[in-house]
Amino acid sequence: MTFSPALARAESLIRSVPDYPEPGILFRDITPLLADREALQATTEALVAPFRGAFDVVAGIEARGFILAGAAAIEAGTGFVPIRKAGKLPLPAASVDYALEYGTATIEMHDDLPAGARILLIDDVLATGGTLAAGRRIVEELGYTVAGISVLFEIDGLGGRDVVGDVHTVFHS
Amino acid sequence: MTFSPALARAESLIRSVPDYPEPGILFRDITPLLADREALQATTEALVAPFRGAFDVVAGIEARGFILAGAAAIEAGTGFVPIRKAGKLPLPAASVDYALEYGTATIEMHDDLPAGARILLIDDVLATGGTLAAGRRIVEELGYTVAGISVLFEIDGLGGRDVVGDVHTVFHS
Repeated sequence: MTFSPALARAESLIRSVPDYPEPGILFRDITPLLADREALQATTEALVAPFRGAFDVVAGIEARGFILAGAAAIEAGTGFVPIRKAGKLPLPAASVDYALEYGTATIEMHDDLPAGARILLIDDVLATGGTLAAGRRIVEELGYTVAGISVLFEIDGLGGRDVVGDVHTVFHS
Repeated sequence: MTFSPALARAESLIRSVPDYPEPGILFRDITPLLADREALQATTEALVAPFRGAFDVVAGIEARGFILAGAAAIEAGTGFVPIRKAGKLPLPAASVDYALEYGTATIEMHDDLPAGARILLIDDVLATGGTLAAGRRIVEELGYTVAGISVLFEIDGLGGRDVVGDVHTVFHS
């Protein structure tokens, strides 16, 4: 894939942190990319581009997904809806459990959107795909449509794409 | 204060939830405002407006602050930097403890910004001000400048403004 100069530069700002959060893991830290105005702008545009005009709201998954989803909502001129960890929303209308490496986690969402709302689901990293697959399920349980799933960085070889279904990713490991 | 029609409508979308998260507390839920494209756009513009041109980066405080800060960074054409709860950043350069109603919390931040970077600090709600005061401290500990602090909703009567210092707030209780 050929990137624009701005996107190529954005990719170069993703920092690899060895042995974080535990030995043997190579963590991809996107904070230097986020801090750079041109890189943030180009990346946000690239997250939205394939779906422009085909969605009504951007959904972000707590916590890091909130950053890029909030940015994408302004970039696209749409609203934003949070998908939060259990117990953080005052009026959860749906709740979905999903498996982590050890144990389970739960996400929740409100149901204030117009019926049939088309949602672009955004997160920062696609790894095993558990969180994004749960995000897709909670959107569909509430009767909304997943217009697309868009991720800044995909870690290849973990099978996330098989779990989540069709995903647009800006950068790959 | 007189609002534009878009901002007046945005304010009407803030939902009051009685007895959340505990009896006697009236929770201000901004998710209906965020979900509305015009309300989100007008509110993001209002958060940024007094500081436009006077800052280089927007900082958001985990987790809800990430949403509006990410939006504001695109609105203003700047980068974004996260201020996170302890243990969430791979390379924290500073750490600040602050008091909660019961116990304490800790926030952390990286130091990848250019020396002297001017930071606009954004959060959703100003209540007692502990979190935002800690946000100001961590920015200054790293040698950056607080160009301003901007908050969507201020709960009057809790003394937050006295703790945080000069704050721009879009809406008041």
